Amino acid sequence: MAVPPSTYPRRLLPLFLGLFQGALLLFFALFVTYDEPSAQAEDTNLVAHKVYSTFPFFQDIQVMLVVGLGLLLTFLPRYGFSALTHNFLLLNFSMQWALVLQGLLQHLHHGQIHLDLHKLLISEFAAVTVLISVGAILGRASPCQLLLMATCEIPIYLASEWVIVTRLGVLDVGGTITIHIFSCYFGLGVSKALFRATKQPLHPKETPTPSSDLMSLVGTLILWVFWPSFVAVLCQPGDAQHRAILNTLLAMSASAITTVVASSLLERDGKLSLGHVQNGSLAGGVAIGVVADMAVPPVTALALGSLSAVVCVLGFRFLSPLLGRKLTLLDQCGIHNLHGLPGILGAAASVLAFLVASKDTAGSQPSQVSPAGGNASEVAEGRGGGGQALCQAAGLAVAIGASLLAGLLTGTALRLPCLARPPERLCFDDSLYFKIQQDQGESPGPDGSAEEGALALKE
Amino acid sequence: MAVPPSTYPRRLLPLFLGLFQGALLLFFALFVTYDEPSAQAEDTNLVAHKVYSTFPFFQDIQVMLVVGLGLLLTFLPRYGFSALTHNFLLLNFSMQWALVLQGLLQHLHHGQIHLDLHKLLISEFAAVTVLISVGAILGRASPCQLLLMATCEIPIYLASEWVIVTRLGVLDVGGTITIHIFSCYFGLGVSKALFRATKQPLHPKETPTPSSDLMSLVGTLILWVFWPSFVAVLCQPGDAQHRAILNTLLAMSASAITTVVASSLLERDGKLSLGHVQNGSLAGGVAIGVVADMAVPPVTALALGSLSAVVCVLGFRFLSPLLGRKLTLLDQCGIHNLHGLPGILGAAASVLAFLVASKDTAGSQPSQVSPAGGNASEVAEGRGGGGQALCQAAGLAVAIGASLLAGLLTGTALRLPCLARPPERLCFDDSLYFKIQQDQGESPGPDGSAEEGALALKE
Amino acid sequence: MAVPPSTYPRRLLPLFLGLFQGALLLFFALFVTYDEPSAQAEDTNLVAHKVYSTFPFFQDIQVMLVVGLGLLLTFLPRYGFSALTHNFLLLNFSMQWALVLQGLLQHLHHGQIHLDLHKLLISEFAAVTVLISVGAILGRASPCQLLLMATCEIPIYLASEWVIVTRLGVLDVGGTITIHIFSCYFGLGVSKALFRATKQPLHPKETPTPSSDLMSLVGTLILWVFWPSFVAVLCQPGDAQHRAILNTLLAMSASAITTVVASSLLERDGKLSLGHVQNGSLAGGVAIGVVADMAVPPVTALALGSLSAVVCVLGFRFLSPLLGRKLTLLDQCGIHNLHGLPGILGAAASVLAFLVASKDTAGSQPSQVSPAGGNASEVAEGRGGGGQALCQAAGLAVAIGASLLAGLLTGTALRLPCLARPPERLCFDDSLYFKIQQDQGESPGPDGSAEEGALALKE
Repeated sequence: MAVPPSTYPRRLLPLFLGLFQGALLLFFALFVTYDEPSAQAEDTNLVAHKVYSTFPFFQDIQVMLVVGLGLLLTFLPRYGFSALTHNFLLLNFSMQWALVLQGLLQHLHHGQIHLDLHKLLISEFAAVTVLISVGAILGRASPCQLLLMATCEIPIYLASEWVIVTRLGVLDVGGTITIHIFSCYFGLGVSKALFRATKQPLHPKETPTPSSDLMSLVGTLILWVFWPSFVAVLCQPGDAQHRAILNTLLAMSASAITTVVASSLLERDGKLSLGHVQNGSLAGGVAIGVVADMAVPPVTALALGSLSAVVCVLGFRFLSPLLGRKLTLLDQCGIHNLHGLPGILGAAASVLAFLVASKDTAGSQPSQVSPAGGNASEVAEGRGGGGQALCQAAGLAVAIGASLLAGLLTGTALRLPCLARPPERLCFDDSLYFKIQQDQGESPGPDGSAEEGALALKE
Repeated sequence: MAVPPSTYPRRLLPLFLGLFQGALLLFFALFVTYDEPSAQAEDTNLVAHKVYSTFPFFQDIQVMLVVGLGLLLTFLPRYGFSALTHNFLLLNFSMQWALVLQGLLQHLHHGQIHLDLHKLLISEFAAVTVLISVGAILGRASPCQLLLMATCEIPIYLASEWVIVTRLGVLDVGGTITIHIFSCYFGLGVSKALFRATKQPLHPKETPTPSSDLMSLVGTLILWVFWPSFVAVLCQPGDAQHRAILNTLLAMSASAITTVVASSLLERDGKLSLGHVQNGSLAGGVAIGVVADMAVPPVTALALGSLSAVVCVLGFRFLSPLLGRKLTLLDQCGIHNLHGLPGILGAAASVLAFLVASKDTAGSQPSQVSPAGGNASEVAEGRGGGGQALCQAAGLAVAIGASLLAGLLTGTALRLPCLARPPERLCFDDSLYFKIQQDQGESPGPDGSAEEGALALKE
Repeated sequence: MAVPPSTYPRRLLPLFLGLFQGALLLFFALFVTYDEPSAQAEDTNLVAHKVYSTFPFFQDIQVMLVVGLGLLLTFLPRYGFSALTHNFLLLNFSMQWALVLQGLLQHLHHGQIHLDLHKLLISEFAAVTVLISVGAILGRASPCQLLLMATCEIPIYLASEWVIVTRLGVLDVGGTITIHIFSCYFGLGVSKALFRATKQPLHPKETPTPSSDLMSLVGTLILWVFWPSFVAVLCQPGDAQHRAILNTLLAMSASAITTVVASSLLERDGKLSLGHVQNGSLAGGVAIGVVADMAVPPVTALALGSLSAVVCVLGFRFLSPLLGRKLTLLDQCGIHNLHGLPGILGAAASVLAFLVASKDTAGSQPSQVSPAGGNASEVAEGRGGGGQALCQAAGLAVAIGASLLAGLLTGTALRLPCLARPPERLCFDDSLYFKIQQDQGESPGPDGSAEEGALALKE
């Protein structure tokens, strides 16, 4: 399947992207417009208010995805350009593709498609799933494979999100179930189907250097800072949003501290592992999403943050090596530890929260049954706490099942030879995709250790 | 003109800056005050609302200019401190200088000068022109030369902006014509006059290293994320601002994808060039500025984004080398490809938009003639679409003509020997301007390749 | 006191942090709730408005502390992970600890503790003091020592802030006196008591490399950009906040330019020192805090910015070496130059401002006596300008006295052997706290110079 670099096929990527961009232009030209300008001053104020209340959150999320996540992925020392650029490319591709698919659905119902910031935001959320899933196969897949993966994942995500949120009435304002769990198991499914039972030995270019680890840590910190915006952007303004922000802040703060505790206790010599810090500090943000806007006591957020950090670090220390050995499952960035396990924890917490709520308020007015503060979907509103708890569990099951299955199928499709998986020797290597100055007979740059320099010469 | 480093004159910079800062203090002491505190609660609310609606945009723009643009310029591996610091210094100097000039004009009319956030924002926009123009001569000019350039460029920009926007009534909310095109041709003019027909051979310190290219790419991503704030900050709140944000997002997204297509197709082996990605991804933001708030269909933004990325990449691949060979024109950062060509494309699109609008609405009410949604200047409002189209074209011509001429004159002034152009050997080298630790007999740092270490020893 | 790395004790850190996190969970479970959901639409709007008007500022401050300050501290080339992680850990620990202490006070009065964004913000401000103080002993103290320091500093800060602001009625919206001066002298006290009269020779790992200096410079720029949010977040909305933003922008802009002037004049060869640029550019932000929202003329902000930059650069050039020689005082990051001297300057300016105000308005209505625009505390409101001036001076004295004393005591406590001060050879070295890939027999990474590689081999 892998091909030598000299004959590595390179025309598919621009062809595919070019056709996509052309089709998008056509689609927009035919069907997409902006809302009519508001005729009245009141409406203008409303639009202005919407912009001021959404746009800062939107920008925060953009920083997270483009800069924060991009930098987090640059821990592979020879793969920084690819990590940043592929992440950036996939975000834009997936966002546009989600816009088209959403638009098509809307078109079937209403004819014209009206674009607004909220639709872009929803598409951005869809794109996040792709960016997370990629983490499972980062460095071992070609851009074409990643794009095909995005092409498959976006419609499946939209369908699964529709089932989980609209049909089942699952409450999940921060995307714990719909985004994190879905994308994690989708990515693992792809990885499993793509690499099958081939054991991937440790690649010499896979080990982070201090400077690549530092960049990655900066990425973590950027994600950590802006995560509350991600969780709170779709909340009801007012108390629910306020609570979502506070809960996320508390959960992430607890994660940061607990990660240090867990990492230090687990390593034999008590030193911290950078991988733990880079991932564990964010685990609380994943777990809190599903209960963030609910009227749970603040201690829930702290506990969830601490527990998810512990689970994440334990996952890196024990579960990942185990999965690698027993299931020959490749999970390059450890997305199962950052998105899978904490996500399941969060989902379980939401089940529990509704169960507790149903007991607490047996006999009281139904409006107080739901711990969700004003953000309940219409389906959820009529339900008791017990019913909603069942619902959340069902949503979790659907997310895991659908994503695993779809991921396995997608991964099989990614084995198509024309998609040009990179040869083993050039995995984790920017030089396969980028014109690097060193290529032109220059001395090895700052990232080039002696060992790699020698390797470059042999090549 | 160039002098040996030992006798390199270093007193002019602090002298000039010190005098400037002193004069600024005097000017502020004599003429500048804040607005009177609002007497009534209503006014207080109004001020508070203004702050909340402007300040987040303002901060975004500050991040773009100080961090994003600064990092983008650090692609020169030995020139990172200078790139960041000179960019930072020029921003502050130009902003203060623009404040003074604006204030003087206001003083002539009203006596006292009242400072507010909006005036600072306008000054910031003026400073942007300097930061762009510098890109043409980055690394080959001394800080004194750059400061003199800023001193000349700010008043010329303010005058040209006044002619284009106030007199001609050109609609250009994102500064495509007034900022990007103006600063590009001003910079090219300076470069031409400063270096004349001297062919500048490739300098050994000019080639990016992987780590400097990575920092530069991060700068691009920061600029990309915050660009919508730059375009939308001066829009009418409400629909126009909403549209400006959406159009900019669409254009930049299209640019990101199309850049990959174009770069991959143009390089013989299908690899991406980092320079293309760093610049092409931003081209859409330059082009969209002039039509961003107009009621054009969304496909315009996508098309403009795609086209401008193509034009930018083609410029880097073919036009820049050609200009270098035929006109011995030095354009270090390729500002012509990022700001010039996409800017002209955007200006042409605005002409077209008004022409189409004038045909569409022949016979309808004049208020619907203009595609500009509520942001039309008073001059523009009475005009038909055809008249406005002519106007936009005239604005483009004025911007190019005035900036080229002024740039050539300024560049000639920059040849003054006392301004201490750096000697060829120490171009692109921080050690001319900064105390670098290596200077003190330390081993070469992470950026020092063997070749450079040897060079340092010889020095 | 120092121990060999093989027997370096490593269980105290997770133990301490784990117990703290457990106690926090208990405390939250028992006492902390969110505000009741608003019953009425009006209240919901009020909460929503509060979120929109505070949250963007809050996020800016988070970026400053986590990313900006973190990066600023990475100038130590082998200590980047520790600088970023310890800064991050201390922020979270101190913030939670401040929440608890604040909550306890509130609990004594009202029973339940209601959490909101404003309380988190106040706790964040308390945490800032720790992050600043750490700068004095960065690289020479263990994480346990830093945590104990935070444990002592937070309650002392809260007490001193209560005395200064609530009892004395000092006006200090940007925390110049209460945060910057307090934390500076606290840190210096700790450093003095911890290291006593031991002269700390220049450590080989203490010298920045170009790449670590570049990261640090980026940190400065991030701090510079977001500083206005830090100063203005607690101001009265409306004119006072508007003025605070403008004054901070002016002061920081003047600092940026004046730093270049001062640094260039002070170095014999006219080159800039990166340390000066990294710190001096921020000095204006420290100094302006105490007068930022007052109705002083804009020239005050410019003058204060310029002067504080001069004072900061002079401090680095002359005072720091002097203090090191005469008092054997270690101030690793030069916090005295960045926070101490400019802080005192700002406090003196506030005294002066009130004196001038009292003379200007002798005989006029008392409401115009105070230059503070609407943000005066109740204690301050009844006072004349002269009384308030005295008050500001008293606040300054209290801040310096209390912090020095408390710092000396805390530093003595930090000498406890069980806190495991790092051995001299492993100061400024990540490898004491982090599993570094190089440890595992890899070649030295990009940060490893030959000298350090040799040192590593000997180890």
